[in-house]
Formats: sequence, C-alpha cells, structure tokens
Amino acid sequence: MGIDPGLTRCGIGVIEGQPGRKPALLLADVIRTPAAMETGQRLAAVERSLVRYVAEYRPDALAVERVFARRDVSSIIGTAQASGVVLLVGTRAGLAVAQHTPTEVKAAITGNGRADKAQVGQMVMRILALDAPPKPADAADAVALAVCHLWRAPAIARIAQAQQRRDLAEGRARARALAAERRKPA
Amino acid sequence: MGIDPGLTRCGIGVIEGQPGRKPALLLADVIRTPAAMETGQRLAAVERSLVRYVAEYRPDALAVERVFARRDVSSIIGTAQASGVVLLVGTRAGLAVAQHTPTEVKAAITGNGRADKAQVGQMVMRILALDAPPKPADAADAVALAVCHLWRAPAIARIAQAQQRRDLAEGRARARALAAERRKPA
Repeated sequence: MGIDPGLTRCGIGVIEGQPGRKPALLLADVIRTPAAMETGQRLAAVERSLVRYVAEYRPDALAVERVFARRDVSSIIGTAQASGVVLLVGTRAGLAVAQHTPTEVKAAITGNGRADKAQVGQMVMRILALDAPPKPADAADAVALAVCHLWRAPAIARIAQAQQRRDLAEGRARARALAAERRKPA
Repeated sequence: MGIDPGLTRCGIGVIEGQPGRKPALLLADVIRTPAAMETGQRLAAVERSLVRYVAEYRPDALAVERVFARRDVSSIIGTAQASGVVLLVGTRAGLAVAQHTPTEVKAAITGNGRADKAQVGQMVMRILALDAPPKPADAADAVALAVCHLWRAPAIARIAQAQQRRDLAEGRARARALAAERRKPA
C-alpha cells in the first residue's frame, strides 16, 4: 500500500506482486476532506478511511511519501500532520512502514529522479498494464510509491541485513579485544 | 489541557479553573521518545501517552500550539506530525480543540507577545502560585498554553456566537428577500 499524504487529497494505492514480477493494481483512490473542516476532524476522517482500507486490503507493507521542510508551501504543515496519521495507523496495524522521497519514487519508476507527473503516470500505466494512468494525480503518485517500495524493498532488506552482519562482526571483534585485554596480567 | 507538540519532547500541562479566577496546576510533564526510534513508533508512543492522560484528567478542552511552516528548523516536520496526533486524539475524545500561536500565548500570559521563555515561566509560576516555574521548558510552555486557553476561551466563544447570530440574521434576511421575490406576480 502506497500513500501520498495530504489533508485536502490523500492518495492511496494498493498493488499485489512479487519483486521481479509484474504487479497488479488493486486500488487507486483519494481520501478527501473539506478545507472548511477543523484540522482535528480532517485528521480523524483520514484516520478512519485508512483504518478501513488497511482492514480491507491487509497489506504487507506501507510506503509513505517522505515530507520535507524545504518544500516551502502553505500546505506543508497539513501534509506533515496527515503523514503523521498515516505512519501512526501503519505502525499500530503492525505493518512494515517505509518512507520514500519523491526523487526515489521517480527514479525507481522512470529511471529519472526529475521526471514530471505525466511521465510517472505513463510509466505506472505501463508497469501495471492499465488503459490509462490512475486519476487523479495523487492516486497515481500513491500507486507509484507502492511500486517503488515493491522494487526497493529487497534492496533495503539486503542493506539492513548487511548492516546487522557488520554490527554483529564488530560486536564480536570488540568482545574478543576486551577478552584479550582481560587475560593480560595486571 | 495544554500541549506543546514535539517528538523528542512533547510538553503537557493540565490546569483547573474558571475564567477570571486563579487556576490550579494539576500536571506539568513531558512525553519523550528516543530519536533512534522509527517515526511511526514515536508517534504511536505519543498517542498512547496522550490517550492515557486524557482518560486520567478528563479535560474540558485541549489547547495545542499552532505549528508554522515559517519556523525553518529541521525538526518542523516531526513537530507537525506530533501536533497532528495531538489534534487527532483530542478530536476523537470529543474535546473542544483549539490552537494558539506562541505569540498569542506569550501575549496572554505576560502581556508581551515577544516575551522569552524565562519570562513566560516566571509568569506561569506567579499565576499558579508555584514555588518555581514548571520544568522542563516544554512542560512550562504547555501549562502556559492551558492558561492562555482558559483566559481566551470566553472571548473566542463570544466571537463564535456573534458570528453565528450574524449568519442567522443574514440567512433570515435572504429568506425574507426570496419570499418577497416569490410573492411578486409573474
């Protein structure tokens, strides 16, 4: 499940697949909340919809677009608040939660980290063998996040395993050095 | 209940009182989550603590510091995500949720919207008849938010009522105009 967080429009995409095989699209949708509604009510509406979608699709993993402070737009606080609720819902549901930057998603999908929305939509359409890119753009972005995660997850897992092995090896080396130190006559 | 949202330190203050009377301090605390923890886990920890505090103190209202995009600091996204969780918990609990800016809080407490943390702490200490300002600073800020809300709430309610009355009067005027229009011969 991929989520492009937002208060006005929160994109949600669900795909099914194995790394290296052609994934299938299960859902491309947008959760909307009215701007006139209080922020707490909007966040509660996003939470309710997400909880329902997670219960319905039971995803293995949740990929969320990482929000950056440098995006100097007026909606950044609302987007960050919505992303917080998404991370919260995924974590509470016990899902593997990962964040990807827009550049990582574009690079994974199109090979170009600076691709525009239309190019991402076109590639998502081809990868999932659709007749047209998912609409609206927020739903397409969420599907792209899910595809990005499906493809990047094995690499991320390998890096984490390598890191663990290195930490373990370093820990053993430290333990040996400490034991050798202790065996020295005082 | 006042909340100064944050992931590393989330200040929480609870006071009891009536507008125009001396309030009493019930709680000044800080919810902490380790920076090494994943964001989703940190948000879930903040949520659990808040839910517990709300159940324990059963506040009438929740006052949260409003987060601004212009605060160009690296922690702004985490702060916004935490504020989203605070607004969510308050809304779900059916509390009256309000946001106040730091300037509004400082002005309400010290009479000066540019007061520093020490001045706010000193005034909070006097208002609540404490021996020392609440520690750490995030807890003192949360208590100041609660005091600010207690004092501003009646004014905010009066403005909302005036707005409602105006909306109602305008609605009636429109209805009368429409009825007069309809009574005209075609």
